[in-house]
Amino acid sequence: MDLNEEAVQLHKKLKGKITTSLRGDVTPDTLKLFYSPGVGAASKYAESSGDKLKEVSWTNNLVAVISDGSAVLGLGDLGPYGAMPVMEGKSMLFKHFANIDSVPIVLGVHTVDEIVAVVKAIAPSFGGINLEDIAAPKCFEIEDRLKAELDIPVMHDDQHGTAIVVLAALINAMKVVGKELDNCRITISGVGSAGVAVMKLLKRYAPTVNIVAVDSKGIINSERSNLNDTKQQLINNGTLSPDRSGSLEDAMVGADVFIGLSQAGILKPEMVRIMAKDPIIFGLANPVPEIMPDIARAAGAAIVATGRSDFPNQINNVLGFPGIFRGALDNGVSKITDDHKISAAKALASMVETPTVDEIIPNPFASGVVETIAKTIV
Amino acid sequence: MDLNEEAVQLHKKLKGKITTSLRGDVTPDTLKLFYSPGVGAASKYAESSGDKLKEVSWTNNLVAVISDGSAVLGLGDLGPYGAMPVMEGKSMLFKHFANIDSVPIVLGVHTVDEIVAVVKAIAPSFGGINLEDIAAPKCFEIEDRLKAELDIPVMHDDQHGTAIVVLAALINAMKVVGKELDNCRITISGVGSAGVAVMKLLKRYAPTVNIVAVDSKGIINSERSNLNDTKQQLINNGTLSPDRSGSLEDAMVGADVFIGLSQAGILKPEMVRIMAKDPIIFGLANPVPEIMPDIARAAGAAIVATGRSDFPNQINNVLGFPGIFRGALDNGVSKITDDHKISAAKALASMVETPTVDEIIPNPFASGVVETIAKTIV
Repeated sequence: MDLNEEAVQLHKKLKGKITTSLRGDVTPDTLKLFYSPGVGAASKYAESSGDKLKEVSWTNNLVAVISDGSAVLGLGDLGPYGAMPVMEGKSMLFKHFANIDSVPIVLGVHTVDEIVAVVKAIAPSFGGINLEDIAAPKCFEIEDRLKAELDIPVMHDDQHGTAIVVLAALINAMKVVGKELDNCRITISGVGSAGVAVMKLLKRYAPTVNIVAVDSKGIINSERSNLNDTKQQLINNGTLSPDRSGSLEDAMVGADVFIGLSQAGILKPEMVRIMAKDPIIFGLANPVPEIMPDIARAAGAAIVATGRSDFPNQINNVLGFPGIFRGALDNGVSKITDDHKISAAKALASMVETPTVDEIIPNPFASGVVETIAKTIV
Repeated sequence: MDLNEEAVQLHKKLKGKITTSLRGDVTPDTLKLFYSPGVGAASKYAESSGDKLKEVSWTNNLVAVISDGSAVLGLGDLGPYGAMPVMEGKSMLFKHFANIDSVPIVLGVHTVDEIVAVVKAIAPSFGGINLEDIAAPKCFEIEDRLKAELDIPVMHDDQHGTAIVVLAALINAMKVVGKELDNCRITISGVGSAGVAVMKLLKRYAPTVNIVAVDSKGIINSERSNLNDTKQQLINNGTLSPDRSGSLEDAMVGADVFIGLSQAGILKPEMVRIMAKDPIIFGLANPVPEIMPDIARAAGAAIVATGRSDFPNQINNVLGFPGIFRGALDNGVSKITDDHKISAAKALASMVETPTVDEIIPNPFASGVVETIAKTIV
């Protein structure tokens, strides 16, 4: 049985991945406290604010995982029904890794205004909101507006979770090859939600790093027409190097680092050979990376990372979001800032005492990951 | 410590009443099935419909309890934060009594259009929707529109859960006093969501029953000005007896049954004394009924029921909603009809083999209640 068939069978057998349970026994004696009439006193207690409510309800430990299904994994626009198994899986990981209660919510609406309105309307039900698998570029405006308008933490994990774990891996990769990120040339393939967030966080962490971004039409620069607002902004605000043009191959000449957040197999061995000395390759397309690790190494890559658990150096969001929300909930943090993300990335990197080519990032099941990151969200 | 203080302390100690748990262990081996990449196959499997999704996700056993907090218990408009403890309590009861997973969702929006839009948008996340504590008259339109537009069961429990349990109790009360509902005069105090639903279901069950409804301004009839649409409709469609006018006291003359869904203490002993022979009194205001049982009995009541657990004959919604949704989920019923409600009421009544003045309705903790009702929702 192949992995896909096995996954469907397991989902059918368990009829889902999460369930609810009770924090206390329901008896004739407790019923009058948990429910009418006693619960009325808890309601009056909670009435005035979300903070009061957290004292007497599960919202103190509760994150919604919300998607409209417009960009599910690498599968595209599957809509709300197709999104649910992934969102329920995310809720499962929140519970397993960070003991956070989490509820998957999939939406039958898809415009920015609709999604913002719905999430705002249900936000009083939760202690935090993890946006997930919402297509770029609308994901940027949705997240910006919700962060501005809500007083609970909101994070689009495809963007920031990915960016944090990539930065952590890169911090350690730099140590292994003896380079400084501020002096590096980085080529990023893929300018979707993850690609954009990675670029922004790298530039914030290492202001003089040289970043070249490549989408399906080639290097992004000011000579390109019909760039969307997000891509135009990356040029205007100096995130992208202004003087490069051409194809992915052109972008790879002299690059110290390749970060792929795009699609299977697009990085060829000859493109690795034209990189700078000791090239670093993060091929993060899932499940098939931009280049397979053995091919990248044969072409001279010093360090290779993927999103997969069956190769060394797995760059997996599960290293980030559990600790980030654990910290935000425990420490009453309502906005997750760039400083939080950088602190979290540094903390995650520091968990590998002596980075090597085969260990630049902790294993998701390593102990202490959640606690180490949570401490930085203050 | 009084009940209210005890309730708040218990809520603080437990930090809520429900939590999430996992249906399987998360390990390196299962992670690739529960989450990326394997989950992608479950997503593709579920993409086309809510029914497919139910096979591979928790939506097959999941009910949302949704409120805007506009009519929380008898406490009024407490808003979303104040509503949450009650909704979380309801989710707790769904789990305890019917093993249904349930998520409380409170809304920061309050108009009919907004509530309908938000509930429709999040509906793909759930297998059923229990509306709760939404003020009349907007609750009627909200429920009607959602029932028409969604393909999962939607029920406003304050209306129909109450109506089902009241009808069940009344069926047995009739047996005890040897009357027929079709020949009875019934006075209903309170024309909110519960009162209206009770009247409609009684009239549906016993078409010739004579119903007089009383609100804060007296008996509802066609001579009253400024009646809202709902009340006007009750006159127009023949639910209410057309020829009565005056006060609650006037409405009690010759009544066989009083059903209070209104407020504490408004039924006086002298109003019981002017009722027909063997009067039946349901004083369902919570926590303090329209008349206390000992006073009602002293004034001649043959049977007294309240919403409280500390007196005989507790008319409690928890006798209804767990079984109704258990049946709807198990039997794939997407619309809960009047016939379902009447069947459920009859089944609930039949659980008391020999009704007596002190036992016209089963105890909520009696075994078999959920199963008995669930069988009728087909």
